[in-house]
Amino acid sequence: MEEEEEGRNMVVNTYPLSSYTFCTKEAKMEKDISVVDRCARLKFNYIKEGMRTTVGGILLVQEHNHPHILLFKNRYNFYTLPGGRLKLGENETDGLKRKLTSKLGADSPAYVPDWQIGECVGIWWRQKFGTIIFPYCLPHITKPKECRKLFLVHLSEKEYFAVSQNMKLLAVPLFELYDNAQSYGVVISTIPELLSRFQFNMMTN
Amino acid sequence: MEEEEEGRNMVVNTYPLSSYTFCTKEAKMEKDISVVDRCARLKFNYIKEGMRTTVGGILLVQEHNHPHILLFKNRYNFYTLPGGRLKLGENETDGLKRKLTSKLGADSPAYVPDWQIGECVGIWWRQKFGTIIFPYCLPHITKPKECRKLFLVHLSEKEYFAVSQNMKLLAVPLFELYDNAQSYGVVISTIPELLSRFQFNMMTN
Repeated sequence: MEEEEEGRNMVVNTYPLSSYTFCTKEAKMEKDISVVDRCARLKFNYIKEGMRTTVGGILLVQEHNHPHILLFKNRYNFYTLPGGRLKLGENETDGLKRKLTSKLGADSPAYVPDWQIGECVGIWWRQKFGTIIFPYCLPHITKPKECRKLFLVHLSEKEYFAVSQNMKLLAVPLFELYDNAQSYGVVISTIPELLSRFQFNMMTN
Repeated sequence: MEEEEEGRNMVVNTYPLSSYTFCTKEAKMEKDISVVDRCARLKFNYIKEGMRTTVGGILLVQEHNHPHILLFKNRYNFYTLPGGRLKLGENETDGLKRKLTSKLGADSPAYVPDWQIGECVGIWWRQKFGTIIFPYCLPHITKPKECRKLFLVHLSEKEYFAVSQNMKLLAVPLFELYDNAQSYGVVISTIPELLSRFQFNMMTN
């Protein structure tokens, strides 16, 4: 493999949070109101369609020259990345774009960002039904239940986001996520390490 | 940025541990016999040369179809990646090759592997003197003390390694490293997450 191939010290332009415009849109139905509900739904869908593939987008902004990530917080104080489940056979990039539009796009197509899906930075596996997820799949697990892929989403200098009324969208700094699985879960709390290889170019207004 | 640019699902060939030959070479002097010693040495070198850049190589093998990483264990049960400090102005790739040869190469140049240095997978910053290291550098830290970069090292099917008599070289599975900062430290214990985006092609003999 060519050494420079992957673009070492890859640069990501990061614009101030204040560059972006946020408005609200109609509340979406929440699919689960408890962890038990969620596990039951996963199991039902697995029986129907097999292993689910889910995708999450890492949308970066900067404040005080430090990278922040856009996260949803629901009314149970549960944090999630914008994203969701792919349809059967759906391409990851297309599926993530569809989900980003559903979660963050305005109702008017003219205002929906032209999503630039970038690098896959991490892949997690749900080996069994339940809440535990690992950054590898053990060889004896022949039927994993979920494959979860995280992608960088490169934002333009200006974007217009619309957030469902029943969700909050927060810009959370990397230093808050780091080593904080208790608040953000193992996937989101490891994003600082996954992004550490990138060089952030902090843009100003 | 082109979506396919980085080679999603990048494949890494991983050969069985039994493909490799290990022998011992003369013991190397250990630079520090305690954490206090080590901190004093870091401080002394910083005053002399400014921020240190250190590089670590992730050498992968497989056992039971699961990736393992080669780690040194010293007599204080402290684990390290093969690698070390760059010389002033030294290129990262050249410096890592030099360090890998010093730590793992045979005395006879003909037996030294032709090191293939691959992707940078993570960068850590020591913001102050001491043992704490972060996967980012905060903007108010204008004089970080160390920048530590981890690189994949792509091994060929057969290699010949020579290990100093006072060190042990172990192949540690990803599932043992994961979520185990207590035994391996924050840098090494996060390698499973950093590698999760790669697809391992488990080769057999």
